[in-house]
Amino acid sequence: MQIGMMGLGRMGANMVRRLMRDGHQCVVYDINPASVAALVTDGASGAASLAEFVGKLAKPRCVWLMLPAAITGKIVDQVAALMEPGDIIIDGGNSYYHDDVDRAAKLRDKGISYVDVGTSGGVWGLDRGYCLMIGGPDEAVQHLDSIFATLAPGADAGAPAPDKAAAGTAPFGYLHCGPSGAGHFVKMIHNGIEYGVMAAYAEGMNILKAGNAGKVKRAADAETSPLQNPEYYQFDFDLANVAEVWRHGSVIGSWLLDLTAGALKSDASLASFGGRVSDSGEGRWTLKAAIDTGVPAPVLSSALFDRFSSQGESEFADKLLSAMRYAFGGHVEKPKSGS
Amino acid sequence: MQIGMMGLGRMGANMVRRLMRDGHQCVVYDINPASVAALVTDGASGAASLAEFVGKLAKPRCVWLMLPAAITGKIVDQVAALMEPGDIIIDGGNSYYHDDVDRAAKLRDKGISYVDVGTSGGVWGLDRGYCLMIGGPDEAVQHLDSIFATLAPGADAGAPAPDKAAAGTAPFGYLHCGPSGAGHFVKMIHNGIEYGVMAAYAEGMNILKAGNAGKVKRAADAETSPLQNPEYYQFDFDLANVAEVWRHGSVIGSWLLDLTAGALKSDASLASFGGRVSDSGEGRWTLKAAIDTGVPAPVLSSALFDRFSSQGESEFADKLLSAMRYAFGGHVEKPKSGS
Amino acid sequence: MQIGMMGLGRMGANMVRRLMRDGHQCVVYDINPASVAALVTDGASGAASLAEFVGKLAKPRCVWLMLPAAITGKIVDQVAALMEPGDIIIDGGNSYYHDDVDRAAKLRDKGISYVDVGTSGGVWGLDRGYCLMIGGPDEAVQHLDSIFATLAPGADAGAPAPDKAAAGTAPFGYLHCGPSGAGHFVKMIHNGIEYGVMAAYAEGMNILKAGNAGKVKRAADAETSPLQNPEYYQFDFDLANVAEVWRHGSVIGSWLLDLTAGALKSDASLASFGGRVSDSGEGRWTLKAAIDTGVPAPVLSSALFDRFSSQGESEFADKLLSAMRYAFGGHVEKPKSGS
Amino acid sequence: MQIGMMGLGRMGANMVRRLMRDGHQCVVYDINPASVAALVTDGASGAASLAEFVGKLAKPRCVWLMLPAAITGKIVDQVAALMEPGDIIIDGGNSYYHDDVDRAAKLRDKGISYVDVGTSGGVWGLDRGYCLMIGGPDEAVQHLDSIFATLAPGADAGAPAPDKAAAGTAPFGYLHCGPSGAGHFVKMIHNGIEYGVMAAYAEGMNILKAGNAGKVKRAADAETSPLQNPEYYQFDFDLANVAEVWRHGSVIGSWLLDLTAGALKSDASLASFGGRVSDSGEGRWTLKAAIDTGVPAPVLSSALFDRFSSQGESEFADKLLSAMRYAFGGHVEKPKSGS
Repeated sequence: MQIGMMGLGRMGANMVRRLMRDGHQCVVYDINPASVAALVTDGASGAASLAEFVGKLAKPRCVWLMLPAAITGKIVDQVAALMEPGDIIIDGGNSYYHDDVDRAAKLRDKGISYVDVGTSGGVWGLDRGYCLMIGGPDEAVQHLDSIFATLAPGADAGAPAPDKAAAGTAPFGYLHCGPSGAGHFVKMIHNGIEYGVMAAYAEGMNILKAGNAGKVKRAADAETSPLQNPEYYQFDFDLANVAEVWRHGSVIGSWLLDLTAGALKSDASLASFGGRVSDSGEGRWTLKAAIDTGVPAPVLSSALFDRFSSQGESEFADKLLSAMRYAFGGHVEKPKSGS
Repeated sequence: MQIGMMGLGRMGANMVRRLMRDGHQCVVYDINPASVAALVTDGASGAASLAEFVGKLAKPRCVWLMLPAAITGKIVDQVAALMEPGDIIIDGGNSYYHDDVDRAAKLRDKGISYVDVGTSGGVWGLDRGYCLMIGGPDEAVQHLDSIFATLAPGADAGAPAPDKAAAGTAPFGYLHCGPSGAGHFVKMIHNGIEYGVMAAYAEGMNILKAGNAGKVKRAADAETSPLQNPEYYQFDFDLANVAEVWRHGSVIGSWLLDLTAGALKSDASLASFGGRVSDSGEGRWTLKAAIDTGVPAPVLSSALFDRFSSQGESEFADKLLSAMRYAFGGHVEKPKSGS
Repeated sequence: MQIGMMGLGRMGANMVRRLMRDGHQCVVYDINPASVAALVTDGASGAASLAEFVGKLAKPRCVWLMLPAAITGKIVDQVAALMEPGDIIIDGGNSYYHDDVDRAAKLRDKGISYVDVGTSGGVWGLDRGYCLMIGGPDEAVQHLDSIFATLAPGADAGAPAPDKAAAGTAPFGYLHCGPSGAGHFVKMIHNGIEYGVMAAYAEGMNILKAGNAGKVKRAADAETSPLQNPEYYQFDFDLANVAEVWRHGSVIGSWLLDLTAGALKSDASLASFGGRVSDSGEGRWTLKAAIDTGVPAPVLSSALFDRFSSQGESEFADKLLSAMRYAFGGHVEKPKSGS
Repeated sequence: MQIGMMGLGRMGANMVRRLMRDGHQCVVYDINPASVAALVTDGASGAASLAEFVGKLAKPRCVWLMLPAAITGKIVDQVAALMEPGDIIIDGGNSYYHDDVDRAAKLRDKGISYVDVGTSGGVWGLDRGYCLMIGGPDEAVQHLDSIFATLAPGADAGAPAPDKAAAGTAPFGYLHCGPSGAGHFVKMIHNGIEYGVMAAYAEGMNILKAGNAGKVKRAADAETSPLQNPEYYQFDFDLANVAEVWRHGSVIGSWLLDLTAGALKSDASLASFGGRVSDSGEGRWTLKAAIDTGVPAPVLSSALFDRFSSQGESEFADKLLSAMRYAFGGHVEKPKSGS
């Protein structure tokens, strides 16, 4: 079927390619003409303006936006202004689901359907397919089924395809999760979980790396806690090999572990990274949802807060701890390592 | 090759079966004669006493122990008393790696090699293979290579086998991690990570389940925090389907997620479970290693402490919080839900 | 000076009494006539309706609201409708500071000043004084100075009074923290810290209580982690005495510790409490502010989430953990203690 | 009474002074002769060797050790070798209570009593008195009562003294907590709580400091999470004044808050501190005790782990998180701020 895609960054462009490979017709637009031109070469129909973009679409028009969350709201308004009742806007970016709920209500009054699609798969999605978490009105979601089916991974390679009528679409990698906002809600939680899972591996690997602590000479001053049993910390673990062996038959096998093994194999010291870990809105919103609903989330919050710390945001709190220690015990700080 | 297996519970018996399937000769022993008899039927050579068990083994004798951690130490001593220099004892149970370090040193004086093997795979290992994390002296570990190769999953089904000489044994699912204790150390960290990963999924699912909080009527008393925006919590998520869709193409795909999806598909309310989550030694030891080495592990500790809470161990602390609230603010506790 | 107080619950009534003791004239109103009557007996001027209440106040009218957060917004509107430019509304309740920012902007257009006052002191404030954290425009806050000075604890008993001109008002227990919203922001953080401090004591006491763990017979099953060194857990601590001794010369002396010692002295088993710990909005909002601003708050969030758990909200997550353990390892749950 | 003090650092020397002020006779020894000489000037009886030190003491000899934990064990042995049955060794340092249990058992065989005393009070103890948490046999503890009474703060200034016979010694600031090890166990938990309380203040202050986040220009790149409502983060809080106001009538008043207010008053930017927060053994041991006994301690562990992070120990874990993000999403790290 025909679909319009606006926002041709890494994600948007790859999604267009995956759609065209499977026979869909794509009209594409981006503020950067070069991004449009690249996809036209690959077979897409390009547009030089928003008006031309919307004008090229047959009714009911389906416009998929793949934009930074910060500008999605504005563009939704602009696209909607060019549309008619029965048309569909799909937001495949990382919007806050609150915005979906609000936007959908506004567009509903105009007869335009709004579909929010949480999209996971990263740079691997072109070949591996994208996991799609979908929110919106039934009719619109149904109308887009073939698009979703193409973008999603589909039936597992080598395994017999499940019966879609019986098992639903989840085994194919896409799911209509509920009304508007439901897609980004599920994607939000997905990312919250992702933070926790990633941190679990990272902390475990960090302890393994310290398995040789008994070999290291420690400062013997009053500000350093002694290692009581150095004889139990004499291990030089090969972290890349440990990650690799866990991939085969252990309880903690996962795609993130696959990537971890790959990264450690490239360079077990990870010297090309500095350790400043960014966070996106979803991790934060997950915690806000936990707080709103009174659900404990100590693991997910620990993972988020560690990222904040990695960004240097615990510095003032730590200075205050040192100030208190100095005030009650006369403890003088040790210098930061490396300085 | 020939190997003796003592401890024929679920894990030990299945390992014997997997070994015999691949042509190894197994001598088996257990204090429960029925367990021995069952494996004799399957082709193993049974023993009626520890002395007979060790006596049936050819030199160098290889005895694999698959016992509860609490009695392993005692049995190691008994087996060693029947052995000669050059023989090998393998502990495949869940021993604390400190004990491995101590035992290996003691046996080394007698010329007996001690090999510790952390074993992951649970009830699925018979068919799926066991992930083996191995510690001990090079020669003994090398001697046992064909045993490890059989127990481990081996090359991935359908994929070309990696070159063992070049890539080592990790891609086959077993790894010599270092000297005695190294195997159980790596297994300990594996389980620590497992707790964190499990908790990340569980917390995320718990928030999803609360996605309908805005539909639920809340008490409007001074002891209940109001939900500020009920309009954003109107979702009835199908948790089994959400877990299923995440298995296909998302960043958080994993074997634990596969099991989660299966459990939720059987009964999304999980009514057959009460929520008392046991913990084994490994999770606790992981945290102790983190503390000893000064490595932060907030996610892994949050996961462990949640299990303690599920066992009722936060009760006194919570009572004290209520007592303080009553003392400064006159706040009277709400009754526990369900009581 | 004259002030109107609406909302004559425990907090509001006691504040009126403290104000009258110090010579201020109080006009009082509540939807419950009995509450009004009780204070009239003590010397206040009562009102039978909102209109009468506002009508009795001299210009510029000063109305202090001491109401549940859920209805404050509505009453602010009603009071404002009866006011004139130059009048002042004070919200001394537990409003979300976002609401203060919004309300103040709306009232500013009408020439009415809005002052938010975070009030700490609980049931002890009548005698001990209230710690007041104030937000709002300079002129209005200055106008109310003598009211704040009376409600606050004032100079420390027995110590020479600090010079207010030099040291500001903070040493007297009240502080103009910034523009509208600043008072409730500071109160919100105060409560967030309160949660953390309370939890620190409660967790420590809980560990002390377990100091006799080595005397207790433990189940010796596969689902129970053994206590490795029972000889180190043979202590029967007298918790009330421990709390008491810490009050004298230790680093952790505090008012909350004073209350803890009192509660444990009354009944060291805290048998009259069930352990369901309520939380108010401030603890939740503190975490949201931390998330918004990217500031790590692992201690404060752990304290909040423990309260959620005490309310039973981790149950589904814990069931899911048990379901996973059953799925990969065949582990069968132990029954909940007490059931 | 007479007492011998060995270890004349800041703590030991001040304790001798406080004892002599109250009429006790002190024999003192240190490997640094200058430390001995300083106290001799103040009226103590000095010793030039361990033998002379013990020789100067009347029977039953009472030797108080105030030494670094790392050497205490060795010195206990040396002192004990010079003693006779009936003598008493007191360890007032920061020993691990496991060592107390072991040492006491060994000395008991020789007829020597061992008393462990957890000592809190820091640099303020000379004037303010020390909070003493005492473990050991009844007779020895009773024998030392007048020493403990002098070192402890005693009855509260200005308040009528409690009846020691009725209320015990806790209201005077010292407590016999139980058998050997009980004193350091209680001190260990005291310090664990201290970490949690300190972190609660530090995190709260850090959020307050970020109250102006809406005024700060944020990077608008894909790796930075946007601030959704900058209008609610327009506050420039005066942290020193906020800490000061909380000292008067609020729920969170404490000695640590007094010190916090003092530190922020000196320099609200805390520019003289770098933020590397040391930890001592007690915080670590508290967590180990929680783990051993299965008691959840999420707040205390979060506080400890934050210190580890401040020491740079999360770096490898954070690098691994960045490596994973790069692997699945092509996310390139932002540089560390300040570099």
